[in-house]
Amino acid sequence: MKTTLKLVPGSIVAPRGFRAAGVFCDIKRLGTGKGSQKGKKRDLALIVSDVPAAVAGLFTTNQVCAAPVKVCVPRVQRGSAQAVVANSGNANACTGKQGMKDALEMVHFTEQALTLPTGSVLVGSTGRIGVAMPMDEVRAGIIEAAVELGATPAHGDYAAEAIMTSDTRAKQIAVEFKLFGRTVRLGGMCKGAGMIQPGMSPTGARPAATPLHATMLCFLTTDALVAPRVLQTALNEAVANSFNRITVDGDMSTNDTVLLLANGKAFDTGGKKAGSRPRLKDTRSKEFLVFQAALNHVCLELAKMIVRDGEGVSRFVTVRVTGARSFADADAAARSVANSPLVKTSWHGGDPNWGRIIDAIGYSPATVVEDKVDIGYSAPGGRQVLWSLKRGQPTKATFKALCAAVARREFDLHIRLNLGRAEALMYAADLTEEYVDFNKGDVSDPAALGG
Amino acid sequence: MKTTLKLVPGSIVAPRGFRAAGVFCDIKRLGTGKGSQKGKKRDLALIVSDVPAAVAGLFTTNQVCAAPVKVCVPRVQRGSAQAVVANSGNANACTGKQGMKDALEMVHFTEQALTLPTGSVLVGSTGRIGVAMPMDEVRAGIIEAAVELGATPAHGDYAAEAIMTSDTRAKQIAVEFKLFGRTVRLGGMCKGAGMIQPGMSPTGARPAATPLHATMLCFLTTDALVAPRVLQTALNEAVANSFNRITVDGDMSTNDTVLLLANGKAFDTGGKKAGSRPRLKDTRSKEFLVFQAALNHVCLELAKMIVRDGEGVSRFVTVRVTGARSFADADAAARSVANSPLVKTSWHGGDPNWGRIIDAIGYSPATVVEDKVDIGYSAPGGRQVLWSLKRGQPTKATFKALCAAVARREFDLHIRLNLGRAEALMYAADLTEEYVDFNKGDVSDPAALGG
Repeated sequence: MKTTLKLVPGSIVAPRGFRAAGVFCDIKRLGTGKGSQKGKKRDLALIVSDVPAAVAGLFTTNQVCAAPVKVCVPRVQRGSAQAVVANSGNANACTGKQGMKDALEMVHFTEQALTLPTGSVLVGSTGRIGVAMPMDEVRAGIIEAAVELGATPAHGDYAAEAIMTSDTRAKQIAVEFKLFGRTVRLGGMCKGAGMIQPGMSPTGARPAATPLHATMLCFLTTDALVAPRVLQTALNEAVANSFNRITVDGDMSTNDTVLLLANGKAFDTGGKKAGSRPRLKDTRSKEFLVFQAALNHVCLELAKMIVRDGEGVSRFVTVRVTGARSFADADAAARSVANSPLVKTSWHGGDPNWGRIIDAIGYSPATVVEDKVDIGYSAPGGRQVLWSLKRGQPTKATFKALCAAVARREFDLHIRLNLGRAEALMYAADLTEEYVDFNKGDVSDPAALGG
Repeated sequence: MKTTLKLVPGSIVAPRGFRAAGVFCDIKRLGTGKGSQKGKKRDLALIVSDVPAAVAGLFTTNQVCAAPVKVCVPRVQRGSAQAVVANSGNANACTGKQGMKDALEMVHFTEQALTLPTGSVLVGSTGRIGVAMPMDEVRAGIIEAAVELGATPAHGDYAAEAIMTSDTRAKQIAVEFKLFGRTVRLGGMCKGAGMIQPGMSPTGARPAATPLHATMLCFLTTDALVAPRVLQTALNEAVANSFNRITVDGDMSTNDTVLLLANGKAFDTGGKKAGSRPRLKDTRSKEFLVFQAALNHVCLELAKMIVRDGEGVSRFVTVRVTGARSFADADAAARSVANSPLVKTSWHGGDPNWGRIIDAIGYSPATVVEDKVDIGYSAPGGRQVLWSLKRGQPTKATFKALCAAVARREFDLHIRLNLGRAEALMYAADLTEEYVDFNKGDVSDPAALGG
């Protein structure tokens, strides 16, 4: 079944019944804010649905998780929400009881400002860890954002800007597709840059025996009508194949959050009774597959934007491991390669150094047999693979040809373990001098230090 | 019990009955050899005992392991050896059947050149992966080294130079101590620089459920008389607390090897029968503890030299995790911090960023409770700790004071999980622009590409 998706402008405000705002309230100057000296940067976003929406979410599995995550988890589990308040410049992580108080005040203050019921607002934060939230500025920002809410593409742009930290550009997308014969829209915005290797679960609890590793924040909106349980199932699946498959630096953040609000406004009956509105409630239905495909597409495009705009990143590499004995093996091998400093620096240099790749597979927890391993390169998504190694032996591919394959800004790395049928992929980045320079910070200017 | 150790010159040739040589035979030019253009660098070392010696060894647990490792494992298990041939410039890893043939030829050719019995020579290699050994040059080098063997400190220096790759200096040490009333010596040399997070075991097999992660090579000699089984026990213990506790970049090599030869020449009876020579054969004896202490010291000093001279390294940090629920937890937390790109770049910048540290603990497999964690700094080995975080809350330590603590070239990072009694430490390095620049290589000059 093929879902026809059409790109539309407006990101999170493309779906009907959503408004947004992004304002500057000086959190960055007070919290962290690399580049905050270079001019005012928006640092508080608000996304509001006109009506209560079904909600789904996934959160970092880091055991040290930020106050906004702790506030969101039980709220999302109730299945309904109407707004999201998010800030950059301060992660509100490792801020103790004051941090929890501040995160709760952010949602309560937003509920009051928007005259929404208690429990209907969610919160996300990103920025420096361990600094108390500047609540006077946050409150002023929420009031300003509430006044500025709107549904033009510019409103989406402002909100997307307001969650950026070390991102060099805003990340957003919206698509339109048919569901139950109606035109439905799905939009999203996200941020990333550093501390990026999300491993998120619906409750922030770790799946047993699953080794998981941005602050990345992603907020999604749709005007489809979806049962909360079904919405969560769809989001789990989409995140498993997108945000949970990316790495910039292998560091999993304390704040990773993905939230999806579905307000059903595409099916507004204009006064007719609610019963006639088609609601997605069966994960085995054809309509569910359409929605899932659209959500997968939006999440994957946003996840790739995070890697491409990672701190100091100059190359985007899709690591495809196939032929593993189990998914856990394929995943472990792909992550080991995607996070190896020696592999990542060789990508940066355009060096087709398969020795470092097979080394990283070999020390991963995955079962690997050296003389069965194939390693090769293709264009992104390409089927024409230039193999540098087959069955553990160098092929006749010339160094020049291999250099040409890895000289592209984006390429796929194919690793076949030839031991089984399981596979996994990771969207990965190189490691550059710029990454080091950016993250070493400048202690002579504490206010400019990164998260 | 305190073992009095005296530093003596001569490294591996300090113990009686050992000779060494280090020669240039052009492997670096043909294999890899960063800097080989800058002048001839010694690339083949030979260490020879005058008499058969007891031997112990530990090898990389990387599933992709080099031919010399495969050749050594069964030879070491036989418990006796008389010489080691080692080269830099070519790792002889991922070289298939030809690689095994070449590694075997290296030991056989050395046996012939030195007229030693079959099975008595061991081999170690380091350098670029996946390139066939230039055997004509290797044979010429072995013959030259056999001719040049000697026991002056200069011979030790030449051998230590010959195993260097990206090392900026030779690494060697020798100590003298009393055993059974006699003066015994223990010497060693090693190399490191990049692809450094050894996890070695006696057979190269992975201990169950132990996540392990340079090429590092280390060759040790002693004129003590030790039973092979006891020698292996002592080496296992010494390596567990030294080489297996270091990381430069988190990449475990295909070639990591530690070998220890004990020839008993300190107890030469000058013609009296062998029965009167006191042999270490009981691991519960006081004499064993003396030997163990000396071996621990030599291995730890050599291991620290590897971290201090790691590629691009500007800081040496001892990560001390205490109060963990289990050793596995303590180890996992320490490795997570020691290998986090964000933590390592903050060390480079002299930024006391505890947020990145607690983040890295939180995503490690170790059980961590945020509001129990203490984080602080001291001078190396110091008891005066400046705490930046106590029970998850920032202390009153000023940013300036914390900056001063991490401005040192060497410092200890103290992490108390306060959940149990287990502890672990890692000797770690920062991540610098120089590391990236060095390892991205220069594809316009394939001969100059690193391992």
